[in-house]
Amino acid sequence: MFGSTPLTAHKMIVLFTDFGADDLYVAQVKAALAQQSPAGTLVLDLLHRVPAFDAKAGAHLLAALQPQFPAGAVFLAVVDPGVGTVRDAAVLQADGKWYVGPDNGLLSVVAARATESRTWRILWRPQALSASFHGRDLFAPVAAWVAAGTLAADKIQETPGLTVQLGADDLAEIVYIDHFGNLFTGLRACNVPRSATIVAGEHRLRYARVFAEAPAGEAFWYDNSIGLIEIAIAAGNAAARLGLEVGHAVGVTG
Amino acid sequence: MFGSTPLTAHKMIVLFTDFGADDLYVAQVKAALAQQSPAGTLVLDLLHRVPAFDAKAGAHLLAALQPQFPAGAVFLAVVDPGVGTVRDAAVLQADGKWYVGPDNGLLSVVAARATESRTWRILWRPQALSASFHGRDLFAPVAAWVAAGTLAADKIQETPGLTVQLGADDLAEIVYIDHFGNLFTGLRACNVPRSATIVAGEHRLRYARVFAEAPAGEAFWYDNSIGLIEIAIAAGNAAARLGLEVGHAVGVTG
Amino acid sequence: MFGSTPLTAHKMIVLFTDFGADDLYVAQVKAALAQQSPAGTLVLDLLHRVPAFDAKAGAHLLAALQPQFPAGAVFLAVVDPGVGTVRDAAVLQADGKWYVGPDNGLLSVVAARATESRTWRILWRPQALSASFHGRDLFAPVAAWVAAGTLAADKIQETPGLTVQLGADDLAEIVYIDHFGNLFTGLRACNVPRSATIVAGEHRLRYARVFAEAPAGEAFWYDNSIGLIEIAIAAGNAAARLGLEVGHAVGVTG
Repeated sequence: MFGSTPLTAHKMIVLFTDFGADDLYVAQVKAALAQQSPAGTLVLDLLHRVPAFDAKAGAHLLAALQPQFPAGAVFLAVVDPGVGTVRDAAVLQADGKWYVGPDNGLLSVVAARATESRTWRILWRPQALSASFHGRDLFAPVAAWVAAGTLAADKIQETPGLTVQLGADDLAEIVYIDHFGNLFTGLRACNVPRSATIVAGEHRLRYARVFAEAPAGEAFWYDNSIGLIEIAIAAGNAAARLGLEVGHAVGVTG
Repeated sequence: MFGSTPLTAHKMIVLFTDFGADDLYVAQVKAALAQQSPAGTLVLDLLHRVPAFDAKAGAHLLAALQPQFPAGAVFLAVVDPGVGTVRDAAVLQADGKWYVGPDNGLLSVVAARATESRTWRILWRPQALSASFHGRDLFAPVAAWVAAGTLAADKIQETPGLTVQLGADDLAEIVYIDHFGNLFTGLRACNVPRSATIVAGEHRLRYARVFAEAPAGEAFWYDNSIGLIEIAIAAGNAAARLGLEVGHAVGVTG
Repeated sequence: MFGSTPLTAHKMIVLFTDFGADDLYVAQVKAALAQQSPAGTLVLDLLHRVPAFDAKAGAHLLAALQPQFPAGAVFLAVVDPGVGTVRDAAVLQADGKWYVGPDNGLLSVVAARATESRTWRILWRPQALSASFHGRDLFAPVAAWVAAGTLAADKIQETPGLTVQLGADDLAEIVYIDHFGNLFTGLRACNVPRSATIVAGEHRLRYARVFAEAPAGEAFWYDNSIGLIEIAIAAGNAAARLGLEVGHAVGVTG
């Protein structure tokens, strides 16, 4: 939808984390961004409820979400259970967009699916680096510099690719549950015929185009607004009703 | 409070949805808005926790909330269980403010209570329209154009009024529960004397002016900050204690 | 980290409340701010999940969080169970930052720890002042004027200090639980040797530098990103596992 429209006035930094939308972490990241950003920079909270500590689920969500954002967008992507250890910090440029985050797999599905990409290791460290909050202390300033076009060359080092690589394939698992209780899978709908049955636990689910056309009270699957196969119940909570959680395997038959 | 003060520098787009404040939907709407908006447009998250799928409760909340916002504000209001079906998409201008959303009742209490209003059906459809997320694909661009003053006349068609009309009357039900557990009704306090008793289930509630003046541990009703009758317990969770939910009927006696 | 860097382009207003991040209160505050603020004012949602009605816990959180924000920042801090009663409304200037909120203790730990500070009582009242939402009607306009440098001298009166004073000492209690279930105490880590044992209920906790170095599945304490002693379990929910809540006492031994 946005691919052909250049973003006019604003630089855009897109936050994608497991920091919690209502917690005290995001504002600290934004204060750090503001310190290094020109006025008019747009900061968007894409998601702060990435499944906690789950870089794999996050990687598939990020890959599905990024096409909605315009060329030049900078994603600050942080799901970082290994913070304070030896995992690398990375900058990825993929098909005209930028990604800044830990090199723990979170950026690797985007990288693997990109037509063209480059990767860098972040060498720079701030004078005061907390042990537990690199999102604020390390990744935010770097993302702000990338967005502003002021990232100094000696702060990064180009590398052949990310260290942790998950690959481009779809993930046959639940990767996200929204607040309605709808279950996102890591399966791209473009790879599955609408005649297929989705199997999740003991449940076998048929396709419906929209909620209003699904059988009342019955779970179904559909091609959701970010191109993933999603399991839902019209006006109901599918996660609670089906007893499924993030990480649960799903299958495709028929 | 704001009626007489013109908003100086900014255009204001006010989001009112059931998309969830911490979910991945709002940022996609904001990215769509940013694509079509001049720099300096202010986007406010009024509420993303409108009771899910409940256009009637949403309609009464929106009508109570809109007076706080300045003339010229554009409300992007989406509670849309019929997305992807034949329900119309509407633009409403009412007493100097604008509303963009589904024609399913959500905008109709505002319309019915307005001194002057005009309505249009949205004819325009984007090249790529998802089946389930018109908030992002259809309503957001239209709201951005309204706010920017760039909505082309051939994208809309004036109509005599909204198709779904709920009327101007108050709603004698619980329409919202805030995070403290306070219960908003759809009854406007200006229509109820302070000597009245509010009846909710088996509970009979008396008026108190402020939380600090209510009897300790006892539920009471008061004239809340958006002019609705609200049921609360000082430093307590009224919803949990009284066992009431959105949609529960309330009455006024004495 | 930010102390030495002047904030370039933006005025910054930082919101710190118990209004709930996903509720309908914050946007009303922001609309009030927008009415009185020049374009380009940055409004940051620091925290809207301060423990409800708990000015003491809030006071210690605010004191720990404020160093992350730049000189000139204006904190709009509202945890206000006494709204509508005789408690005063205050403006505090402390070490180059500003604080606007109720004089109920919430600002007093910041004041007590400041090297230099001044305090004022807010005399101004809006024409329409709701009984329950001074955050919107009273504190927001004042905070906007402070940030814009347009607060008229006759709207405030200097006072020798805040009326409610909690003192500068650390608080040996749980003051916050984040969405991971990590437990913040009001103890500053700089005052506690890393050899110390933290006692919370029947639990005795040892220090670990980062989550990735803590014994698997065991609770530990560490020096968190805002300088407080925090109790956590790597990839686990410490609050649920230890059965601790805000207000629970903690001790330091060894």
